[in-house]
Amino acid sequence: MNKFLCHAVEGGVVAPRGFLAAGVFCDIKRLGTGKGSHKPDKRDLALLVSDSPATVAGTFTTNQVCAAPVRLCMERLRRGHARAVAVNSGNANACTGAQGLRDAGEMARITAAALGIAPTEVLVASTGRIGVPLPMANVKKGILRAAALLDSSPQGARHALEAIMTSDTRPKEVAVEFNLGAKSVRLGGMCKGAGMIQPGMSPSGAPPPLHATMLCFLTTDAAVEAKTLQAALNRAVARSFNRITVDGDMSTNDTVLALANGRAGPPALTARSPHLAAFQAALDHVTLDLAKKIVLDGEGVSRFVTVRVRGARTASQAAAAARAVANSALVKTSWCGGDPNWGRILCALGYSAAKVVEDRIDVGYSRPGDSRILYALRRGHPSRVPFRALCDITGGSAFDLHIDLNLGRGSALMYAADLTEAYVDFNKGDVNDPATLGG
Amino acid sequence: MNKFLCHAVEGGVVAPRGFLAAGVFCDIKRLGTGKGSHKPDKRDLALLVSDSPATVAGTFTTNQVCAAPVRLCMERLRRGHARAVAVNSGNANACTGAQGLRDAGEMARITAAALGIAPTEVLVASTGRIGVPLPMANVKKGILRAAALLDSSPQGARHALEAIMTSDTRPKEVAVEFNLGAKSVRLGGMCKGAGMIQPGMSPSGAPPPLHATMLCFLTTDAAVEAKTLQAALNRAVARSFNRITVDGDMSTNDTVLALANGRAGPPALTARSPHLAAFQAALDHVTLDLAKKIVLDGEGVSRFVTVRVRGARTASQAAAAARAVANSALVKTSWCGGDPNWGRILCALGYSAAKVVEDRIDVGYSRPGDSRILYALRRGHPSRVPFRALCDITGGSAFDLHIDLNLGRGSALMYAADLTEAYVDFNKGDVNDPATLGG
Repeated sequence: MNKFLCHAVEGGVVAPRGFLAAGVFCDIKRLGTGKGSHKPDKRDLALLVSDSPATVAGTFTTNQVCAAPVRLCMERLRRGHARAVAVNSGNANACTGAQGLRDAGEMARITAAALGIAPTEVLVASTGRIGVPLPMANVKKGILRAAALLDSSPQGARHALEAIMTSDTRPKEVAVEFNLGAKSVRLGGMCKGAGMIQPGMSPSGAPPPLHATMLCFLTTDAAVEAKTLQAALNRAVARSFNRITVDGDMSTNDTVLALANGRAGPPALTARSPHLAAFQAALDHVTLDLAKKIVLDGEGVSRFVTVRVRGARTASQAAAAARAVANSALVKTSWCGGDPNWGRILCALGYSAAKVVEDRIDVGYSRPGDSRILYALRRGHPSRVPFRALCDITGGSAFDLHIDLNLGRGSALMYAADLTEAYVDFNKGDVNDPATLGG
Repeated sequence: MNKFLCHAVEGGVVAPRGFLAAGVFCDIKRLGTGKGSHKPDKRDLALLVSDSPATVAGTFTTNQVCAAPVRLCMERLRRGHARAVAVNSGNANACTGAQGLRDAGEMARITAAALGIAPTEVLVASTGRIGVPLPMANVKKGILRAAALLDSSPQGARHALEAIMTSDTRPKEVAVEFNLGAKSVRLGGMCKGAGMIQPGMSPSGAPPPLHATMLCFLTTDAAVEAKTLQAALNRAVARSFNRITVDGDMSTNDTVLALANGRAGPPALTARSPHLAAFQAALDHVTLDLAKKIVLDGEGVSRFVTVRVRGARTASQAAAAARAVANSALVKTSWCGGDPNWGRILCALGYSAAKVVEDRIDVGYSRPGDSRILYALRRGHPSRVPFRALCDITGGSAFDLHIDLNLGRGSALMYAADLTEAYVDFNKGDVNDPATLGG
């Protein structure tokens, strides 16, 4: 956060003034119990509501096969305003054709009616199985029940958070308080992830920048002009969610939505506001915190690895190099074993889209937050650092991998994870128990 | 093989006249015993020799970090002639800098001296750990011992084949006899694969067409002009080795070498020879047979899947779509479970570089060689085919996945494999037993 001070507060998405949340069970999965966290009565429908009109911004999957709720949000975001978000887990409403689009619209209409607002003020999001129509009778029951339970206490946020989880093992939320000039404002967020995680989101209609379902909902009581909010969100997502990978699969449903209801009072932040940097810093902090939590709680993940590439010819080459290393099956299995293998890393760099020259490459390891890097490789040559000293770092639950291509000034990073037997076991499912088969 | 008849014969690489082979143990790994097939005394050095000068062609990894033996071969192939190939397993001689290049040259010189031929007539290949210098004293002992044991009987080929294996569990060889006009000729081959398998080879100096160490050595007693042999090999590799993936990692060492010694007699095949098509057909048959064997014996592989994409806008888009599906962690784990999941397939198609339109896509399954396709999805809509009927196919040890994008006439296929716990277990290694740590 550097020069912008913010401090953590309780409450997640309801920490900012004027937001309410609820989460209920309405049996959306309808398939009995399976592996993971889908207990029979796990909450599966969440509402997040602002008590006053809010500006809104969003980023969405660039997968060409994109779910109905994503299409609905991309369309509605053009207005720049919203009041409520209805979210379900257990069913992605993806690959559901025209019926899926009608169901997403219906989900918004039911929510609007329950809240007494316009349907166009409601956004929707879904996560779960692909290719199965939403059980709309259950969705309706859930929305009505949730609307009656809306709550601005941390419990409402906790219930909503539980309702958006799928294979997540832990709730992921954060909230901060910071100053915009003399005004104290808050920013909160919650998200879910676990599998099908390599987001590559862009604002609606923009070209794909690159490549979970990951869902993230952000709230703030700061007043922020819609365009400014979208620009700030784009920057924050580029540095956080678009830099994570669990398994390299970009979902059909990835969605980040940010609502700013201005309850802290005018004037609204614009591109020229002197306080925009403070808002951006808080937004960056919250999104990065949530993005890292997604990787840490990824399916089967046992080790969190920050891949730092520098010295590439360009920033985009650095990003390609970092992504190739972060998604290599052989590199990720070596991390699972706590192995400071640099041969597989060089191999992945060599087939990446980045220009590399073998005898320029440095590969080193450090503990997170430790500035001392132990180099395994210097200019393509194995160093004299003892193997055991490297293993002491790579055997930890988290470490940083430092790669310097020594060819230019491009740098990039990826927040990545190991590939474990638990990931395979979870995702191979059991055809005799369809509830275990993933989306 | 269609109109070109060929029949299988024994002997692998020594089936054609004038070829001799040997394989010995000389302790190249020097790291004790580890997981996989590296038994303490497993043969690890092979020689393959033609008793007369041969034309030669090769394709090599397009990984920018490419091993010293690959560099040596690319340089020597320019001459178009060779007599011998020296191959070791247990050490890839990759990421070994200038020392690695000197060692590769020395390996060729020792072989040449032992055989009484010119060093420039010797090619070399290596597979195994990355980043460790070759133990040249052991290599020399091995070459001298192998040279004394050269044999044109199938046993020589079997020993050579055993010597090039690493994590392979089965020897992979084939040989065929066919006619070039009135002449009967033979073509044999052996290969190794298992992990780091997604070859994307090109002839020396050509731009990479796309993305194991996989090594393959082909021999024929047909007379084939060097340029013609290279062109035929390029076509064969494009349809075989460059269409396989085990784990999506392109090795630093992938090498295919073909030697044609003309012992069947002149005239040599040229681009204009009427019999070139028969030779190409035999070469295609042999390379495809070996490529499929690599996937079937891939690390931890339990299911072999042929991914067939048609209806793409272009052939290269079809290839991109097939490769995205074949390398998706979520698709591959669903195959491990025998799950006819089409949602993950659509997701992978959607983030591939191919243009796709959700409600145009067909996804079907068939048993290998069975023309009846059971469609799970037609034009983006789930079919009425019972889930159990699909599972009966996808639960088999091999099946074909048929994807029609219905957007054009581009088609492509990939030979792919599932991702299993066994793959992870094998490749995570054990840092307390460095012999288990992979290249």
